[in-house]
Amino acid sequence: MDILQKTFSQLGVDNAPGQEITKKDSCQNLRGLPIKGRPVDFSHGDVNAFPPLPGSLKAFSSGFYEGSSQAYTEYRGRADIRCQLADDLTKFFGTPVDGNKELILTGGTQSALFLAIGSLLPYGGKLAMITPDYFANRKLAAFFGADVTSIPLSYLESEQKAGIDLNRLEDTFKKGVDAFLFSNPNNPTGAVYSAEEIRAIGKLASHWNVPVIVDELYSRQVFDSAPFTHLCAEVERPETVVTIIGPSKTESLSGFRLGAAFAPEEIIERMEKLQAIVSLRAAGYCQSVFRIWFHEPVGFMEQRIQEHRHIRDILVGQFRSVPDVRVRKTNAGSYLFPTLPELDVPITEFVHILRMLGGVIVTPGTEFGPEWTQSIRLNFSQDSDAAVDGVKRLLKIMERYRKE
Amino acid sequence: MDILQKTFSQLGVDNAPGQEITKKDSCQNLRGLPIKGRPVDFSHGDVNAFPPLPGSLKAFSSGFYEGSSQAYTEYRGRADIRCQLADDLTKFFGTPVDGNKELILTGGTQSALFLAIGSLLPYGGKLAMITPDYFANRKLAAFFGADVTSIPLSYLESEQKAGIDLNRLEDTFKKGVDAFLFSNPNNPTGAVYSAEEIRAIGKLASHWNVPVIVDELYSRQVFDSAPFTHLCAEVERPETVVTIIGPSKTESLSGFRLGAAFAPEEIIERMEKLQAIVSLRAAGYCQSVFRIWFHEPVGFMEQRIQEHRHIRDILVGQFRSVPDVRVRKTNAGSYLFPTLPELDVPITEFVHILRMLGGVIVTPGTEFGPEWTQSIRLNFSQDSDAAVDGVKRLLKIMERYRKE
Repeated sequence: MDILQKTFSQLGVDNAPGQEITKKDSCQNLRGLPIKGRPVDFSHGDVNAFPPLPGSLKAFSSGFYEGSSQAYTEYRGRADIRCQLADDLTKFFGTPVDGNKELILTGGTQSALFLAIGSLLPYGGKLAMITPDYFANRKLAAFFGADVTSIPLSYLESEQKAGIDLNRLEDTFKKGVDAFLFSNPNNPTGAVYSAEEIRAIGKLASHWNVPVIVDELYSRQVFDSAPFTHLCAEVERPETVVTIIGPSKTESLSGFRLGAAFAPEEIIERMEKLQAIVSLRAAGYCQSVFRIWFHEPVGFMEQRIQEHRHIRDILVGQFRSVPDVRVRKTNAGSYLFPTLPELDVPITEFVHILRMLGGVIVTPGTEFGPEWTQSIRLNFSQDSDAAVDGVKRLLKIMERYRKE
Repeated sequence: MDILQKTFSQLGVDNAPGQEITKKDSCQNLRGLPIKGRPVDFSHGDVNAFPPLPGSLKAFSSGFYEGSSQAYTEYRGRADIRCQLADDLTKFFGTPVDGNKELILTGGTQSALFLAIGSLLPYGGKLAMITPDYFANRKLAAFFGADVTSIPLSYLESEQKAGIDLNRLEDTFKKGVDAFLFSNPNNPTGAVYSAEEIRAIGKLASHWNVPVIVDELYSRQVFDSAPFTHLCAEVERPETVVTIIGPSKTESLSGFRLGAAFAPEEIIERMEKLQAIVSLRAAGYCQSVFRIWFHEPVGFMEQRIQEHRHIRDILVGQFRSVPDVRVRKTNAGSYLFPTLPELDVPITEFVHILRMLGGVIVTPGTEFGPEWTQSIRLNFSQDSDAAVDGVKRLLKIMERYRKE
């Protein structure tokens, strides 16, 4: 059991988004009185503030009433739904996607990530990833006993690129890795990789023959007309690029657990085989909801992006008005990843204190890489007023713990 | 990639239930004309013939309208739903289940199986299982690089017990295994383990300190008032027994992908950590449907069991009327696993022929263990008339391929 104990010790969920509610309401280090206000859970988006796509429950119900053919689909998802989605993905990504062979519907993008890694990384293999990046990535690596190389992202340097260290990436590819995994837009910073960065990644991956998994979950919510370059459209087939996307964010369909991945045929075959033993399939009735994705009412996505942009701008202003706080303005997605001044409590304790004193839940930076001890992540897909007031409380409480 | 190629070569889905539809409609070895009739897919239950529990869509919709708190639950599932279910499981299994600590809600029982094995079996570890048993078990073992010992089940010997070879089990435990996995009622045979068998398994597991995963998915559909013994109620805590159950079978809620597992606290903690990276959680809105499970309308389950018993009896009679066909009468669940006479085509080819000539889909025995080359599995949770006609066609076509 020793290997398992070690593995699971690296798979903590206590500080993960959504799990803060499980903590006991005790804390030794509370300074000052609680600050009243509407509680805000910045660890994930608020689907009450931004409700699911119109028609989603109706689409689900249609699937339910259809019966057996929707309850039991192929493991990779129902064929006609895959084909419809493949057409939409072909248009969105600017590269042909074959719905029969190159696409799999999954139980959320988390599942897609798991299946992609499980299909490309042998147990104990070598995985390159970015730091900071999506909090589950290094836990996935731990589960697969992977040897991880982290490539730093200088995300505070320029808002025109993500800031990947391409020399480090090349060195790592040169030494040999089984796969490279990254998110674009980057989670937690909201940085978008520039066209030059994406093309360089594609060239290095081709040259060193490294399969790449790119998580583009938030790529439909790009602000300020920023250019967005899809890796899958920049490489020649049959380079191994797995692209992951899903309707759980801007579209607020997270309660249905839906995701999708496309890749060369043999990778999708593996992912389907793995999905068959991990979960069989994305919930059959939920798959019906894919039918309305990419077919939103006219102007829906634009308005939603506009509303998120508005909240982002206010929150960025709030953080930037405070000495020693640094934050990148989100290019895409709903995350902010501010660096706080030095505090005299560890960041995980501060996060706990923040909930106790301010009714504000954020995710500690250390979930995104061990070195992010002064950062927190906020998902600003919230009610605008609640978010602004929540950040006010956050900043006030932060001052009580600022290191002198 | 060599290890991965080997792993995935063992994870075939082509002959798995529900995948038969993906096959091309070509076959070299068709004898005689097709026999017309309503197509029947015996590879899984027909939720049109046996619709989902009344109120399931309404329960889902309530969750949907509740919004964020139902969309984003703890990874192990929403607390109040877990606590309600724990009370029902405590009554049903006759052993206390703590909803806060010992229970996890999963995306189907397949997920529960994956999480349980992933929590107990180190990569490359030793796993004991039964043959024949649930088709995904050996694929799960292959994914974890496991060294598998198969314990034979003499399920045709007596209908009062399952027929497990307890000496082989003890020998295997003695040599050392990381876990023992079995289904009760046995899938695919419908055999129920006797009280003596279950107690013996419990004693051996305790003595040799082997964690046991028992898949009791079908334990609510027991025929003929047969006694049913739950392993979890026969062992002293804190023996490591993981019990898996779900509402996807008799209750026909498979389109929602819901499962549950209970086990000692530290195993559930691991399973939650693993679920966090495999799929995050069972679809939030779907979790609402757990609220109606074990709270069916009065008489609902009894009637459903009665209807299944009726179909079982007719089908068993049909199979037993044919020379050289042997079948055990299902004690519990919806499966029949008849042994056919020797055919002059391999069983996987026969299954394909059967679909082409008779519009009948069954699962080849080889999915349940490589030695079951003369068996097929049928899920008889079907429209009664369609099932009877389907078996008639099956038997007629079988005669065309009987070895002379």
